[in-house]
Amino acid sequence: MFVVIVYDVRAGRTQEICNYLRRWLDWRQNSVFDGHLTQSEYERVLSWLQTFVNSGEQVLVYTTTRADTLDIEEIGDEREEKRFL
Amino acid sequence: MFVVIVYDVRAGRTQEICNYLRRWLDWRQNSVFDGHLTQSEYERVLSWLQTFVNSGEQVLVYTTTRADTLDIEEIGDEREEKRFL
Repeated sequence: MFVVIVYDVRAGRTQEICNYLRRWLDWRQNSVFDGHLTQSEYERVLSWLQTFVNSGEQVLVYTTTRADTLDIEEIGDEREEKRFL
Repeated sequence: MFVVIVYDVRAGRTQEICNYLRRWLDWRQNSVFDGHLTQSEYERVLSWLQTFVNSGEQVLVYTTTRADTLDIEEIGDEREEKRFL
């Protein structure tokens, strides 16, 4: 499946979620990852996120099993990840 | 079609893009909107974004014409929009 994950977590916790998601998906933009996951990978990532997310934070996980129907339009410059913010 | 828009623009310009996208889509999280658009609405929004986005900024527009294949998992709390940041 194709997955897009966006997150809004407290500033001090962004590095941890970023480091975790980087193992599974492509970093696209601040707080945005996307890429392909198998069903079992998806379940693993979802389970980690459910444990990680605290009150007052939110993660949205968009998935489609039909990646062929998905289109991505990139406007502007490719972002450079700042790894040690 | 179903559209997810995420943006990374300079701090002083977030309110303008936010105000624009709010007319067409649902605010979901900081820098994230989603919702349904017709093809002509999509073209209008895309055209506006292409004009708006400056060097060093980026907007990603994910679209699918098969909204029935899309699933959204919300982890954590629904975000409250801070309209006048």
